[in-house]
Parts: sequence; structure tokens; C-alpha cells
Amino acid sequence: MKVSDVGERALISVIHRLQAIVPMGYLGIGDDAAYLPPSDLGWLVSQDMLVEGVHFRWDWMTPEQLGEKAVAVNISDIAAMGGVPKAILTSIALPADTEVERVERLYRGMAKALDRYGAVLLGGDTVHSPSEMSLDVAVFGQPSVTGPILLNGAKPGDRLFVTGRLGAAHAGYTLLSHGVRWPSTSIQHRSVLQAHLAPVARVEAGKQLGALAHAMTDISDGLLSEIRTMTRFGGIGVQIDADKMPIDAATRSVAKEYGEDALDFALYGGEDYELLAAIPPSRAQQAEQLCLQCGVPITEIGVVTDTLGIRVMRAGEEIAVDERKSYHHFTVDPD
Amino acid sequence: MKVSDVGERALISVIHRLQAIVPMGYLGIGDDAAYLPPSDLGWLVSQDMLVEGVHFRWDWMTPEQLGEKAVAVNISDIAAMGGVPKAILTSIALPADTEVERVERLYRGMAKALDRYGAVLLGGDTVHSPSEMSLDVAVFGQPSVTGPILLNGAKPGDRLFVTGRLGAAHAGYTLLSHGVRWPSTSIQHRSVLQAHLAPVARVEAGKQLGALAHAMTDISDGLLSEIRTMTRFGGIGVQIDADKMPIDAATRSVAKEYGEDALDFALYGGEDYELLAAIPPSRAQQAEQLCLQCGVPITEIGVVTDTLGIRVMRAGEEIAVDERKSYHHFTVDPD
Repeated sequence: MKVSDVGERALISVIHRLQAIVPMGYLGIGDDAAYLPPSDLGWLVSQDMLVEGVHFRWDWMTPEQLGEKAVAVNISDIAAMGGVPKAILTSIALPADTEVERVERLYRGMAKALDRYGAVLLGGDTVHSPSEMSLDVAVFGQPSVTGPILLNGAKPGDRLFVTGRLGAAHAGYTLLSHGVRWPSTSIQHRSVLQAHLAPVARVEAGKQLGALAHAMTDISDGLLSEIRTMTRFGGIGVQIDADKMPIDAATRSVAKEYGEDALDFALYGGEDYELLAAIPPSRAQQAEQLCLQCGVPITEIGVVTDTLGIRVMRAGEEIAVDERKSYHHFTVDPD
Repeated sequence: MKVSDVGERALISVIHRLQAIVPMGYLGIGDDAAYLPPSDLGWLVSQDMLVEGVHFRWDWMTPEQLGEKAVAVNISDIAAMGGVPKAILTSIALPADTEVERVERLYRGMAKALDRYGAVLLGGDTVHSPSEMSLDVAVFGQPSVTGPILLNGAKPGDRLFVTGRLGAAHAGYTLLSHGVRWPSTSIQHRSVLQAHLAPVARVEAGKQLGALAHAMTDISDGLLSEIRTMTRFGGIGVQIDADKMPIDAATRSVAKEYGEDALDFALYGGEDYELLAAIPPSRAQQAEQLCLQCGVPITEIGVVTDTLGIRVMRAGEEIAVDERKSYHHFTVDPD
């Protein structure tokens, strides 16, 4: 059964049936607009679009994984502000020959992710696409009582922390580009494929770090790219200790397998969706403890300086970095 | 200059420069997420996607018109809830060979429309598209103190009112399908092309009608299609007087020119973006006066009945209607 056989209303019914009950006070699917109840804290809002052939490929991932990822990468932006996700809207552009089952599985993945993060689907749009599928999610979350944590605000002396591991998503991307598919038989492959195909938004860690950080963002475009954005104002720079970078064995092994430097994966690789936070030294220990309590390791990778630019130290020597490099440029197609 | 020559950051700068200053309390472009300040009334949210070749064609309209229309059709959903628009997010998927100038003109049209409606652009996403451009807008508005006006809630005896004129947008669409282009030399052509290419969201009328109506929606999919949705619950139906339908001379003239019945344009034609409201008889006169005061004519076209179904009367006789017909089906490509 293709979407062209069933029409928009039937499709919306399929989508609607898969969703959790909308909490009291919210208005969900079915009216001209949805409704978010008053919040004393205001609302964080963000939007991320995924396009077939650019951000995802059907031969790389299951529809459920795509649905989960679309939700996670959007919620990651709320986590990066120290906020808690509450709801999403989703616009989907579907080629006429898309199987209804594929759409159903995609929304099933979304529902699973929403349930995990405690958020609900409130509505959106379903339209026809002449070629690729594209999927645009708008996410709504509430900031903490101390307000949203901004990208800018880091001060000289702040310690730079990252959650989880770096470069794993790019290792997964490297495998996929070379024909390895989920689920691979290798545990190490599985681990990095998971990082690329099913990233996790760091909501709990974001709440904890948000209460302590001067500045925070999520690493969607690669570590150096995010650091560049974080340091664009205020006459500050960053010194990174490459030897402290949380690059795990699976990522190192895949980099080695393809003759690449795992550090490049960590510095330039996109889509890790880990958090990057600048935390004053006096609160650094507390940050580590709070994140450990919520089960998310964090690692100090460097320090904010009062000198412009990004310096990366490796075994006591400064190494050259290409500040413009990023594996996920708008200007190039994925290969 | 193509978008592939400048990259995402430069493009965001172009977009950013065109926008109005974000009001105090809001957080706009540049961080992981935007921020809407607390509102005692909560927030209305809606999302509508426009895809090249499905919802718009570059040989039919200017980039400015597309930007204005993308904003207007989204704000129309806020107006349909009796609300006032405050902000939008916009995701845009751009083919690599898109001229930067075209993107700039599109966002200029958006900025113009936002200014008109008193709303601002707070952020969004810019991504690569392998084929068509698509444009997804999420809109945020505040309901009135009496709360959002829902689609369902009409009661037997309520009068059905519509704002403005009906069928004009489909008359414009008919002209465009037959090769007539904006700006045409004919004043009547211009009038209906305007309805299709540059619809106006009825925000002021929506506020006034919202305070009086039992139910309200905007007419995006055609009058009968919207009435069907409005009457899906509650065991109600509608009787319409086709002779009262606000079909103007320009629409009648275009229908005649192409051997069509102007009433069909009004009943089934999509994209009028006028409001449809069910108002108790005791408030009907007040509704007419309030709308006249804000410069929007409204017309009583029928009555809500306690019999299921939609009856359309013309010159005292009931005429056959195809309740499933709509000129804007998901299942078909526009011709």
C-alpha cells in the first residue's frame, strides 16, 4: 500500500493512532493549530530538517531508526540549552510511492523516542514530494528555572567539558560509506553504527551542566566547529588537550581500519550530539559528580583562554588544525 | 552566486540581516534553540510545508511572493484559532545551484509579511536538497483571553459565516494553469492571481470572530472539505445557500472564461485562506459589525443543522455535491 493509495487524512489517522495521549492542558493533532499551555519559564523552540540522500539513506537505516534520530537530534538542541523537551510538530514530505508501512514504522520510531524523552507529538503537516522524502521537526521544551544556557558566555579560565565519547558517529558514518550495514556482526562496528544511526540527546546531563555552565551547546557539526561558534564573541580562545579526548576503542579501531586518525573523527566529525560546556573551575568537580549520578561520563578536554583562536596540544606539542574543516558542510553532498 | 558557493553560515548571515529586531524577552537566530517568553495565555503552534512543484512553481510567482505566502498560510492557522501571531521558525532545503539572490528575495518577502502581521523570525534550519526547494514554517501565536477557538463546537442553529470572497484563489490557480502570469494586464485576472499568489491571513477578523464563534477554521482545502471537518463530531450537518456565496465578479468571469461553474470554485477550490465561523444567531449581527469595522466583509452562507451531511441549496433546489471532492488532494500532483 502506497501513500498515494490512502490520501492525507488516512495517513494522519495512522500517525495519530501511534501517538501517546496528549497531557492535560495541551491541544494536539486535529485542529488548525496545536496549543502549549502557559509556562512560567517560557518555551524553547528549535527546528531541524532531515532530507533523504543528504541526512539519511534508506539503505543505511531502518524507518524506526530515522524516526528516533529525527526526534533525538531536535531534542538535543533543547538539551543544549539546559531545557526539558515537552512536545514536537513534524512536517513530512512523502513521494507518492512511499509504502504506508514505512511511514508507520517511522512514526513508531518517533513515538518510541518521544516516550523515552517524555515528550509528545502535537501535529504538523503531511505533503507530497516529487522526489525525496524530507522530515522537519519543530521541538518545544522548557528551560530550567535559571533560564536558557546560551552558546556564548564562556570566560577565560573556564574548563571545557564534553559528555560521552567523540568521533564515534563519524566512525559509524565511515563504516556506512564503505558498505558496512547495521546490524554488523562486529561489536565495535555495532557500537559506532549506533552512535551514527541512533544518537541519544543528553537531556539529563544538560539539566545538570546547565545549572553550572557559563555556556553550552551540542556537538552536531564537529567539536572544532562548535568551539569556533562558542568563542566567536568576547575575545576568547580555547586550548584543547588532544590526549584527554574521550575517543573510545571502537572509534579508534574503525579509524585504524580505514587508515584515518581517530583524533580527526573527534575534532571534525559531525553528529555526535554530545554536549560541550564551559564550566568555571570552582564548579568542575560538582559537574563531574552530577553527570556521573545520571549515568553520563563527562571529560575535561581543555580550557578557555584570553587569546583568540583554537590551539590543540598533542603529547605536549601544538598540532595544526583546520578551523574551517567539518565533515558535514552544507556546500557538499555526502559521498 | 549560488548557495553552494557561499555555505550555510554566510547564508544565515544574509537571512539574519533581513530580519527585524527580535523583541525583548525573545531569543532569536544564533543559539541551539530560540526562546518564547512566558505567556499567561499559552502558545498556539502550527507548521505548514511548501514544496516546489507541489505547492509553488518558480515560473508562477516571485521569490518575494513565495516568502509572503509561506508566512501568510501559516499565520492563517493562528488566525483560525482566534490568535495573534508572534514568531516563526523556518526550515529551508535548497538545491546547490539556487541563486543566493533568490533566497535573499524569498526571506525579504517573509520579512515583509512578518512585519505586516507583527511577528518575527526566530531561527530554523538551512539544509541542502538534491532536487526541489522546500520550505517549512513553524508559527507561534498567542490565543485570546477566552482561549483558542476550536474546529469543533458548532451547534444546530449556528449561522455559518465566511470572511472575504470564495473561489478567487482557485480562479487564480486556473489562470496560472492556463499560462496566464502575474502581473496580467487584466484587472480581473490580477485580482484572482493575487488571491492565489498572495493570500492574506485574517488575523484581525479572527480575533473578532473568535470572541463570538462556537467553532472556527480557515479555508485552506476548500469550503466543503472544511465544513466536513467542522461537522465530524456532534451529530450535526450544514445547509448552505449557494446564492449567498461571496463569489466576486473577477472569479465569475474567470470561471466563465474557462467554461467552469464559479460555484465549484467556491465549494471545492483550495487556498482561499478565508475564515469559516459558526456563530450563534444572537451574536450574528455583532459579528458582522465588528468585522466591518476591521475592514473585512463577512457573509452568512448557511446554517448548522441537527441532520448529518451537507446540503447545498441553489435557487430553492438542493444540488448534488461531491463531499470527497477537493482541488487540493494529497494523492494527486497539481496539473
